Amino acid sequence: MRTLILGGDGYLGWPTALHLSDRGHEVAIGDNFVRRQYDHEMGVESLVPIEPLHIRTRAWHEHTGRSIDTFVADLTDAHATFDMIERFRPDTIIHFAEQRAAPYSMIDREHAVYTQYNNVVGTLNVLYAIKELDPDIHLVKLGTMGEYGTPNIDIEEGWLEVTHKGRTDRVLYPKRPGSFYHLSKVHDSHNIEFACRVWGLRATDLNQGVVYGQQTPQTALDDRLATRFDYDAIFGTVLNRFVVQAVLGEPLTVYGEGGQTRGVIDIRDTVECLRLTSEQPAERGEFRVFNQMTESFTVNEIANVVATSYPGEISIENIENPRVEAEEHYYRVVHSGLVELGLTPHRLSETLITSMFDVAERYKHRVDGEALLPLVNWRRTANRVRPAEGQPEWSGDELLSPSRSAR
Amino acid sequence: MRTLILGGDGYLGWPTALHLSDRGHEVAIGDNFVRRQYDHEMGVESLVPIEPLHIRTRAWHEHTGRSIDTFVADLTDAHATFDMIERFRPDTIIHFAEQRAAPYSMIDREHAVYTQYNNVVGTLNVLYAIKELDPDIHLVKLGTMGEYGTPNIDIEEGWLEVTHKGRTDRVLYPKRPGSFYHLSKVHDSHNIEFACRVWGLRATDLNQGVVYGQQTPQTALDDRLATRFDYDAIFGTVLNRFVVQAVLGEPLTVYGEGGQTRGVIDIRDTVECLRLTSEQPAERGEFRVFNQMTESFTVNEIANVVATSYPGEISIENIENPRVEAEEHYYRVVHSGLVELGLTPHRLSETLITSMFDVAERYKHRVDGEALLPLVNWRRTANRVRPAEGQPEWSGDELLSPSRSAR
Repeated sequence: MRTLILGGDGYLGWPTALHLSDRGHEVAIGDNFVRRQYDHEMGVESLVPIEPLHIRTRAWHEHTGRSIDTFVADLTDAHATFDMIERFRPDTIIHFAEQRAAPYSMIDREHAVYTQYNNVVGTLNVLYAIKELDPDIHLVKLGTMGEYGTPNIDIEEGWLEVTHKGRTDRVLYPKRPGSFYHLSKVHDSHNIEFACRVWGLRATDLNQGVVYGQQTPQTALDDRLATRFDYDAIFGTVLNRFVVQAVLGEPLTVYGEGGQTRGVIDIRDTVECLRLTSEQPAERGEFRVFNQMTESFTVNEIANVVATSYPGEISIENIENPRVEAEEHYYRVVHSGLVELGLTPHRLSETLITSMFDVAERYKHRVDGEALLPLVNWRRTANRVRPAEGQPEWSGDELLSPSRSAR
Repeated sequence: MRTLILGGDGYLGWPTALHLSDRGHEVAIGDNFVRRQYDHEMGVESLVPIEPLHIRTRAWHEHTGRSIDTFVADLTDAHATFDMIERFRPDTIIHFAEQRAAPYSMIDREHAVYTQYNNVVGTLNVLYAIKELDPDIHLVKLGTMGEYGTPNIDIEEGWLEVTHKGRTDRVLYPKRPGSFYHLSKVHDSHNIEFACRVWGLRATDLNQGVVYGQQTPQTALDDRLATRFDYDAIFGTVLNRFVVQAVLGEPLTVYGEGGQTRGVIDIRDTVECLRLTSEQPAERGEFRVFNQMTESFTVNEIANVVATSYPGEISIENIENPRVEAEEHYYRVVHSGLVELGLTPHRLSETLITSMFDVAERYKHRVDGEALLPLVNWRRTANRVRPAEGQPEWSGDELLSPSRSAR
C-alpha cells in the first residue's frame, strides 16, 4: 500500500508516517515546512527539540532499514501538487497539511485570510489532482471536532438524518465552528463532499478531537525521531500545555469557567486511526466521516487529571477566556465508526501521564513562560501575539489603519 | 441613508443602485469591472449594449439630478476595501461583488480556485473592515438558492429547528450546493454567521433565486441606463436564454429531463427586496436569512411559459445535461420573510414577457449562436469554453498536464 502523507513533517503527520512505515506501507511525505516557519514568526519552539526532516528519515532508515520518500511541495502550488502525486502514485493520500491552530487564525485579518486561503485552496488542488491523475485514490482528510461547535443535540458522524414537517432526508451535519480556522475545515468538508458526489471520488473526513501525548513506540526509539511538543498558547493543545505548567510549578490556566467540553484522543490512537482508515477505504463516491476522538472531558476535568497525577503541589487558575465559546453546554458525541474499524482506545485514566511529565521535566529549561500567555483575543481583530519589550501593552481595540491591515 | 453597493456595475447591482438612488438613498458603487473582463475572456457580450460606468452615472445625473459616487476597488485588496468603506461611511453595504456563475466555476481548476478565492477572501475583507471601521454597518450579502441544493425536506429561511434523539436546536440549514460557485456562497454564509456571533455584526444573507427580466423603471429611462442581458451558457440565466432562443427561432434547450425545479424572481422584485432589507436592518449580532424568490417552476415549465407567450412557433429540445443535478426531486421553499417586510411580488404569469421579446428582437443581430452551447461539463475538470476554429473538438477527459493546470 502506497501512502502519501501531506504535512508529514508536523506534530501528527510525522508519527503517522513512522507508524504506517512500521506496518509495511510504502510511505512518502509531502511538506513545505511552513509549520517550522510559524515557530519563527511567533517566536516559540517545540519543547522537545526536533530534527530537520532529512535527519529524521535518515534515523528511521538506520533503525529499520525502511525508506520514506520526501517531497517539498506547497499545496497552493498546483504544479508542485500534481507533480508530487503523479510521481509517487499513492493509493491513499493522508492530508494533514493545513494551518491547524484556531488562535493563529484569529490573530488578525491577514492570518484569517491566510488560513482560509491556504487550507481551502490546498485541498481544492488535491481534489483536482486526484480527479485528473487517479480518481481511485482514497483521500483521508483531517478535520476537527471543532467544526461542530457545541450544539444542543447529539453530534453524529458527519451526517444527520433529519425529519422536518413529516419528511426525512440525510444531510451533512450542520456546523457552528468557533474560529476562522475551524471554518476553513467546514469549507473543506463541503468541497470534498461535492467532489465525491459529482466526480465519484472516495474520501474520509476525520473530525479529530484534541490530541494529547508526544510519544509513539516509533518516535521513542531515538531522540532524532521525536515529534513536536507544543506548549505555547497558539499551537499547544490543552493537556500538553497543562503538563508543562505542572512541571514549572505554575498554576494550570483554565480559560473561563472551564465547563467547555471537548473530545480528546491519545496520539497513539491518532496514528492507529490513520492506519485503520487507510487500509479500509471509503467506497467510490462516498464521503465518509468519522469522529476521531475516544473520550470527552471538560477543561476542568483535564486540569484535575493533570493536577492529581502530578507528584507535586498544583493549583488551578481560571483566567479570562480569550475565546468566544459556551462555557456550559450539552455535549454528546457518536464516535463508534473507528472502533468498528478496529480501534482499541487508550483511555486517559489508564495513560501514564507520568511519561509526559518526564519529557517536560527533561526539557523544562527550554520553556519560555511568555509563550503560555493567551494573547489572541477572539473579540479583537488586531492581536499582537507577543508584547515587544519596552513597548506599552498593545490594545487590539485601536483602529487598524488600512495600510497596516493590508497584506 | 448611505448605501454602498459592491458590484454595482453588474447585472443586478446597477439596477439596485438606480432604484435606491431613486428612493432617496445616498448611493455609492464599488466595482473592479471584472464582470466586463469575464466577457472578454469568454468571448461573449451582453445582448443589450451597456455603457461604461462613468457614462451610466452621468446619464442618471442628467435625468434625475442625483449623484452616484463610484469607487474602483477589488475586495481581495484589503487596503482598497478599507479605504472605500472609510471614505464613504455607509449605513448599509450591499454585497453583489462575487463571481456568480456556476458554469464559470466549473470550467477547470483555475476557475474553481479563482471563484472560491475571490468570493471568500473578498467577503472576509468586508467583514474585517466593518468590524474595525464601524460594526454598526448592516451587511446585506447576496447568496443563492443554489446553496441549499434539492433536499427532500422543506427549505426554510437559512435556519432549521432540528429535533434529534429527543433534543432540539436551531441550526444553520444544512446545505448541499451544486458547484464550486455555489459552495463559495456556502462558505461565505458560514463566515458571516461567525462574525455576527463572535463580533456582534449585523447581516442579512439573501438566498436569491434565478432572476429574470432586464428592465426596471429606472433602467428603461434611457439606453445609457440599460443593464446587462446575458444569454450565453455561462452567465445567462435560464429564462433570459430561452427568450433569445425564441426570437432566433431556435429550439429552447432544456438540460436533461427538465424536471429540475428552481426558485425564480423578477428583476423588479430583486431591487425592491434590496430596498426593503436595507431599510429594515438586522439586529446587532443577528445573522438573518431570507429566501429571495417569489415562485418555483421546473425548467420545463419555464420553457413552456416562454413558448406559449411567444407569437411564433417554438419547439423545446431536451439536451444532455452538462451539470450533475437531480432532474426529478422534491422542492418546497419558505419565502415569507421578504413579503413580511413589504414585498408585493410580480408573478411570472402576469408579467409581460413580451417586453423581453421586444428587447431581444431589437438586439438579435448581436447574438452569437455559439455562445448558447453549454460547453462546461460538470464531470470534466478541463473544459474548453469555446472550440477554437480549425482545431479538433477538445476532449476534457484528456489528462491536464500539471504545467497547464497550474495558475
